[in-house]
Amino acid sequence: MATFSLPHQSHLFSSSTLQTRTRPRCTISTKVRMSLQETGPSLAVVGVTGAVGQEFLSVLSDRDFPYRSIKMLASKRSAGRRLPFQDKEYVIEELTAESFNGVDIALFSAGGSISREFGPVAVDKGTIVVDNSSAFRMDEKVPLVIPEVNPEAMENIKLENGKGALIANPNCSTIICLVAATPLHRRAKVKRMVVSTYQAASGAGAAAMEELEQQTREVLDGRPPTCKIFKQQYAFNLFSHNASIQLSGYNEEEMKMVKETKKIWNDPDVKVTATCIRVPVMRAHAESVNLQFEKPLDEDTARDILKNAPGIVVIDDRATNHFPTPLEVSNKDDVAVGRIRRDLSQDGNQGLDIFVCGDQIRKGAALNAIQIAEMLL
Amino acid sequence: MATFSLPHQSHLFSSSTLQTRTRPRCTISTKVRMSLQETGPSLAVVGVTGAVGQEFLSVLSDRDFPYRSIKMLASKRSAGRRLPFQDKEYVIEELTAESFNGVDIALFSAGGSISREFGPVAVDKGTIVVDNSSAFRMDEKVPLVIPEVNPEAMENIKLENGKGALIANPNCSTIICLVAATPLHRRAKVKRMVVSTYQAASGAGAAAMEELEQQTREVLDGRPPTCKIFKQQYAFNLFSHNASIQLSGYNEEEMKMVKETKKIWNDPDVKVTATCIRVPVMRAHAESVNLQFEKPLDEDTARDILKNAPGIVVIDDRATNHFPTPLEVSNKDDVAVGRIRRDLSQDGNQGLDIFVCGDQIRKGAALNAIQIAEMLL
Repeated sequence: MATFSLPHQSHLFSSSTLQTRTRPRCTISTKVRMSLQETGPSLAVVGVTGAVGQEFLSVLSDRDFPYRSIKMLASKRSAGRRLPFQDKEYVIEELTAESFNGVDIALFSAGGSISREFGPVAVDKGTIVVDNSSAFRMDEKVPLVIPEVNPEAMENIKLENGKGALIANPNCSTIICLVAATPLHRRAKVKRMVVSTYQAASGAGAAAMEELEQQTREVLDGRPPTCKIFKQQYAFNLFSHNASIQLSGYNEEEMKMVKETKKIWNDPDVKVTATCIRVPVMRAHAESVNLQFEKPLDEDTARDILKNAPGIVVIDDRATNHFPTPLEVSNKDDVAVGRIRRDLSQDGNQGLDIFVCGDQIRKGAALNAIQIAEMLL
Repeated sequence: MATFSLPHQSHLFSSSTLQTRTRPRCTISTKVRMSLQETGPSLAVVGVTGAVGQEFLSVLSDRDFPYRSIKMLASKRSAGRRLPFQDKEYVIEELTAESFNGVDIALFSAGGSISREFGPVAVDKGTIVVDNSSAFRMDEKVPLVIPEVNPEAMENIKLENGKGALIANPNCSTIICLVAATPLHRRAKVKRMVVSTYQAASGAGAAAMEELEQQTREVLDGRPPTCKIFKQQYAFNLFSHNASIQLSGYNEEEMKMVKETKKIWNDPDVKVTATCIRVPVMRAHAESVNLQFEKPLDEDTARDILKNAPGIVVIDDRATNHFPTPLEVSNKDDVAVGRIRRDLSQDGNQGLDIFVCGDQIRKGAALNAIQIAEMLL
């Protein structure tokens, strides 16, 4: 686990009641890591003070990601702050065009406008940008990648040739949904998917997590809740996702799920509808997913497929009523799938209902981006 | 509003941050009410100390329900406690077979086993029982009624003839879903419905609401949460509904929605699937409902139908991102409907997505039962 801590990180973000740690996937000896780090790529983390930026560091550390250097980049406001990471202390630098000189891989999570401004600049300097924003996701020249789902999408991008490139990280809800749905899609071809989400505060950033905590304290004390990030009470409440509403009546978060699924599955005909809801949970999303298949797929076969699929843990114990929860997947790499059952509203084995939970900051953002970066090594 | 307060009712159950009051539907002068009360039915409230029992009193009061007498019935444990209500103070009596002597209408909300034991006893004594439990809902001789949806189901039950009868109040999630879906069903015939719920603590009773409040304080203080009602952390978390899981893999709450919808719509062929999830909200349920129609129904027509339907308020302001929330409907009579939009995963106007919120204790239980009782007057 990373050794830093920013002021905004109250125990709510780290206490065992709200989170459980995953062990590093591979434990490389310090000696081996040092040698890897002499030869590994030079990294830059853009938006290092944000919730996802912090998680980038945590995941790099947990996975012993090899690097020979790493730049901590943020806005002018944070520049100059010291940031201890692994065995060193770093000084946060202001993001500028020059920041990318000599950088092999840049992990971006500083919002769409920063990505649109600095992503192309970094690419011109020969940097491969893994961008967590929505800026380039639907650009047909930019691969939109979930390593467990469509690694082939980035087969033409290589670190060796020193050419810059953009790779987009999908929306967090899309990633969590498709990690679970894709193994079933491969077997039975999903023709229609109806998704309802239960989205955590973290999707709106660290400040939203703080607002949920502060509001909850205020409401418990009988005081009016402070609403800054969201314009309505979040504590003990839920509401339609705050993304703007399009002419279709869908909000942008829902349309990301609809459009990104078609691109990632390379299937313009798959039918998807989504209703995205924000719930008073800190950092993991849940999704209720109804699947309609072209070919029959029975429940037991589906469960076996999911148990053997990468990036998935099946939690589906009917006897003890133990199924995935946001808390149980918080700070975990795997997406949890449960409530796997034949959809009684469809004939035979043409459909399934499943319930999925995944850590929004980790697999929904930082981990997926770093898995993409690992594919470049 | 009723003038009582039980110890378990902290400000969380009554503060304006968590609740807003509705005005009484009709304000009858005290004089008129007195005369009505000389001629009104004799009432009994079974389970008066529970969350729904308390709401029975609140709704009776808000609606100036006429009665000439009212018995406050509960378990031996609560018997003898004084309960101020409207202009009088009552003593809570222990529920026994004799409790129903001379009682015209009994409102039951004390759990299925109490209903199974005392419901038939009350009927034998000539009492019309409006039962909020699931004990008799699927009994084909017992009408399962939502007054806005299927009033015709109880046309043969009359107070005048002094004959006892059972009338079942549907499951709270079913009521809230069908109040919203039925006006659209009447126009375009729903052939398939996919529901995902966001259910409040109140559905598990007052003790569950207290547990959510206590756990939240504990987690905010960094202490381990006390889990009595639910076997896992509820604060800042959500989980699959705690009802037991059937062989189908559906839990009982989900099967209630599937079966009760068929009975209430008198349509054994309607396809329904549901995923029921408990979220950390106090007293109002939310539901994401995907509808597939037999006949086309465009979004604007659907919105007009809903605006003119009984028991519904449409909250669907895309410009300000204002849609139904559990908080906004808490202590309100109406079910709120919003996010009304054409389902992009279906051709033409064959389907809609809607998002529905309703007060679980009120329209989901007490209000619906008292509306049934009003139909008997």
